[in-house]
Amino acid sequence: MSSIKLLISCPDRKGIVLEVTKFIFENEGNIIDSQQHSLGLDSRFFMRLEIDSQQMKKSCAQLQEDFKSIRAKFSMDYKFVTGNKRMAILVSKYDHCLYDILQKIKAKVIKVDVPIIVSNHPDLEHIAENFNIPFKYLPIVDGNKEKQEQQILDELKKHDIDFVAMARYMQILSADFINHYEYKIINVHHSFLPSFKGANPYKQAYEKGVKVIGATAHYATADLDMGPIISQDIAAVNYKHSLEDYKTIGADIEKVVFAKAIKAHADDKIIIYNNKTNVFN
Amino acid sequence: MSSIKLLISCPDRKGIVLEVTKFIFENEGNIIDSQQHSLGLDSRFFMRLEIDSQQMKKSCAQLQEDFKSIRAKFSMDYKFVTGNKRMAILVSKYDHCLYDILQKIKAKVIKVDVPIIVSNHPDLEHIAENFNIPFKYLPIVDGNKEKQEQQILDELKKHDIDFVAMARYMQILSADFINHYEYKIINVHHSFLPSFKGANPYKQAYEKGVKVIGATAHYATADLDMGPIISQDIAAVNYKHSLEDYKTIGADIEKVVFAKAIKAHADDKIIIYNNKTNVFN
Amino acid sequence: MSSIKLLISCPDRKGIVLEVTKFIFENEGNIIDSQQHSLGLDSRFFMRLEIDSQQMKKSCAQLQEDFKSIRAKFSMDYKFVTGNKRMAILVSKYDHCLYDILQKIKAKVIKVDVPIIVSNHPDLEHIAENFNIPFKYLPIVDGNKEKQEQQILDELKKHDIDFVAMARYMQILSADFINHYEYKIINVHHSFLPSFKGANPYKQAYEKGVKVIGATAHYATADLDMGPIISQDIAAVNYKHSLEDYKTIGADIEKVVFAKAIKAHADDKIIIYNNKTNVFN
Amino acid sequence: MSSIKLLISCPDRKGIVLEVTKFIFENEGNIIDSQQHSLGLDSRFFMRLEIDSQQMKKSCAQLQEDFKSIRAKFSMDYKFVTGNKRMAILVSKYDHCLYDILQKIKAKVIKVDVPIIVSNHPDLEHIAENFNIPFKYLPIVDGNKEKQEQQILDELKKHDIDFVAMARYMQILSADFINHYEYKIINVHHSFLPSFKGANPYKQAYEKGVKVIGATAHYATADLDMGPIISQDIAAVNYKHSLEDYKTIGADIEKVVFAKAIKAHADDKIIIYNNKTNVFN
Repeated sequence: MSSIKLLISCPDRKGIVLEVTKFIFENEGNIIDSQQHSLGLDSRFFMRLEIDSQQMKKSCAQLQEDFKSIRAKFSMDYKFVTGNKRMAILVSKYDHCLYDILQKIKAKVIKVDVPIIVSNHPDLEHIAENFNIPFKYLPIVDGNKEKQEQQILDELKKHDIDFVAMARYMQILSADFINHYEYKIINVHHSFLPSFKGANPYKQAYEKGVKVIGATAHYATADLDMGPIISQDIAAVNYKHSLEDYKTIGADIEKVVFAKAIKAHADDKIIIYNNKTNVFN
Repeated sequence: MSSIKLLISCPDRKGIVLEVTKFIFENEGNIIDSQQHSLGLDSRFFMRLEIDSQQMKKSCAQLQEDFKSIRAKFSMDYKFVTGNKRMAILVSKYDHCLYDILQKIKAKVIKVDVPIIVSNHPDLEHIAENFNIPFKYLPIVDGNKEKQEQQILDELKKHDIDFVAMARYMQILSADFINHYEYKIINVHHSFLPSFKGANPYKQAYEKGVKVIGATAHYATADLDMGPIISQDIAAVNYKHSLEDYKTIGADIEKVVFAKAIKAHADDKIIIYNNKTNVFN
Repeated sequence: MSSIKLLISCPDRKGIVLEVTKFIFENEGNIIDSQQHSLGLDSRFFMRLEIDSQQMKKSCAQLQEDFKSIRAKFSMDYKFVTGNKRMAILVSKYDHCLYDILQKIKAKVIKVDVPIIVSNHPDLEHIAENFNIPFKYLPIVDGNKEKQEQQILDELKKHDIDFVAMARYMQILSADFINHYEYKIINVHHSFLPSFKGANPYKQAYEKGVKVIGATAHYATADLDMGPIISQDIAAVNYKHSLEDYKTIGADIEKVVFAKAIKAHADDKIIIYNNKTNVFN
Repeated sequence: MSSIKLLISCPDRKGIVLEVTKFIFENEGNIIDSQQHSLGLDSRFFMRLEIDSQQMKKSCAQLQEDFKSIRAKFSMDYKFVTGNKRMAILVSKYDHCLYDILQKIKAKVIKVDVPIIVSNHPDLEHIAENFNIPFKYLPIVDGNKEKQEQQILDELKKHDIDFVAMARYMQILSADFINHYEYKIINVHHSFLPSFKGANPYKQAYEKGVKVIGATAHYATADLDMGPIISQDIAAVNYKHSLEDYKTIGADIEKVVFAKAIKAHADDKIIIYNNKTNVFN
């Protein structure tokens, strides 16, 4: 079944759902999943539709264009989307998140195309090969990070990348880099943010003596570890666990929240508003 | 804010959402929450709407009546509902579920009215008193369960009860009793069904050596412990735990799944189809 | 079965377990549960024993005295303990934690004696009554908190209280008060600390857009919300949840972590070292 | 640090811990972790010690021999173990469990040696290659399963295999095969056993309408899906999830429980008694 998704965010007013629904019906779409929520008139209205588009005559781009008349009436942010997104993966030396998402992509649990994996280290090239994905080794030479970031950007452009997954990429991206892909770079941080921002979150957690450790997948923003959170999870730790144990227990959570965030983004289940995400289920 | 809910189940066809939405709009309702799902044309379509009804002129009953024209077109099961339901509680001697739901009802976490608590034992009357709820002690005399069930039914009718919550009521209700409240009696069973049906589920779990124990809230049906499941949860157990520990660990899960099921039913978030529940979130 | 517990913390050296075990054996105790952990010689050694004391001739106090010879050899912190502790409960207006722990104490899931419940508000007296526990209403009059704290201290002394459970007591205790019960006051804070310290943690969580909210039970120290953490748990939240929902979802987690912490303290399963807790399981 | 583990199971009597401890001390071991539990005299006593063996003069085999004098006194089952076990992996076509455990073994999260991966299908050879592990393709030819099982047994013997991990191996092993490796074959079944034994557990779960699905790692026994359970976990499902979703959600749980079970077995943290496992933590 081919499907089109429609995401809408606007001030709540009476009649929105009717107008949207009429538009879909007149274009011969069948709504197979819809979620809509607001806190009542004058609050913000969020909606996501998944439409069986088999009998629809117009392309996604045409629908995007034709819907403008409705947008005008309701001051909407909206987008029609279809098909797989093109995702690049940034990686350094940790392999657990990389194996996990590649396995899930191969099994079509996550539906994206991955034209390129980029790394500042050559270590994980064998994994890219195992999954038949091109691997680009772009090291930071002579500390010239700016130059390396430009090389990455060139690579992303060349492959027409829609969004970027940082699978434990151990470099902080510059604000400039991030601005090229606003709300299109997904990072996984190994703490339940906002606790333990910055370096060595497991060490911070260990020293604080928390009883749960966590991981957070979020959009990278210029403000480090402060971008909109997409998914979070935790695992219990106890007095016997060493810092090394924290890392191995945490690795499993990182995988889960990271894969979940990528899947939500890939399936267009996220609307960002006021620096927070609405993640449809 | 006053709100009306609309629940719909029917074969999926194009145009359902449009017709429904138009009906709501023409009656001046504002949809504040909608969830709809199907597996495509020819599969089953499920929908739940929550409607801000402040500006609606018609009563819930009138809407129910007027919607018939749409039902006819789509072979729908549907209902409009509003206001608090009237819930009776059946209880025996265990107090943990009773305290938990009464506290939640008092705190308006669960929005129901409780005109009566019925028990086959006098032990928990003091709790009913603590929450200012009438308590009716209806013991089984001389093994005459049929008579006692009739007394309970009379009590339920007298108080115009919409649904019944069995808060660890330690008697099996007859098919005859259950038929009076089809899909309107919520029971909590202390295992993750379908494992460990029947008596002593914790003992069965202990002897089997499972690593998680669970609880299940479900609609009571004539077929014991086989009614549609509403909510389930589990907790980890280990080799140190005694059967007594299972009971105390399990008690906390029972409370959670039971309260969750009652809340879902009270908020009209459940559609039953093919002996399974769709629980909207 | 009557039992005695022995808790030990000291630098790790060879032979500790042997000496301790010999002492127990010579005093005719049978070890029914032991947990011991260290990170190897020169690191810290932690041990907890639970001893069937039916055939032991000496009192707990006598064992505490006689063990001194072993302590000297190994620079140990240790204590022998037996019997129920005496716990006071501080409470304000929220009733969910109070109902939960009182129900668990009554059901002997938590084994403590509660000679007194103290509150700065009269609202929850009916709950104390329902469980037949004396309730002392000690309001803060004319903003004189110091005086009220002294009244509470007097009450605690009068009832020979071992430790204090703050069941959502909505006042910050002074450093002076806390020093009277060092590591003997258990507080529940409604966030996964160290995130969202201080006032309105659910509001902070809501505004940050986290995907999990949590609760933390910890020992109260002069440094607000920074004392050693005893237990933590979380629950998932999503974009539909209002701040009000956060509070009701959070209330269930508060109960769980609070009861767990009280039980661990009551059962002498906690050793504090370097401002962190070792919680034996 | 080199370490030796000692596992003991016997009827509880006074003095066991003392004798064991004395033995370790006299052999110059330092106990870094000990867990011991019984339900009191006359019940079963379980103990696990982890011993820093750096200064021990005797080999593990010698300790096993010399300990016999103590065994005699207490009717003990016991074993001293050290070093990595040799694990074979059986696999068919599903790759998720295989990737997960191989990544964990490579990262030394699970400490085992894997001299061979055996499969009845050639599909996953590339994964074995990616991790530099020999892969043996042993198909069932002309339905002659007996012959193929003998080939597998030969392979296991050749590689001196200690235990076998069935990473979603889609064949039922014969009782004869299993008897060669009693309590040494770990299988992962995709349901929370004892629910949904046998074929198509996700389909069974889907049709039953459960709200949680699970996975169970257990020792394979002649009685299908009935061997001692080692680890279990669950994940929530809802009305929107298709059977396909169950499989992808379940795959993540399968990985977790399977890796956990292998780790527990590899670290000698399991004692089996009465067809149930004690899994030390």
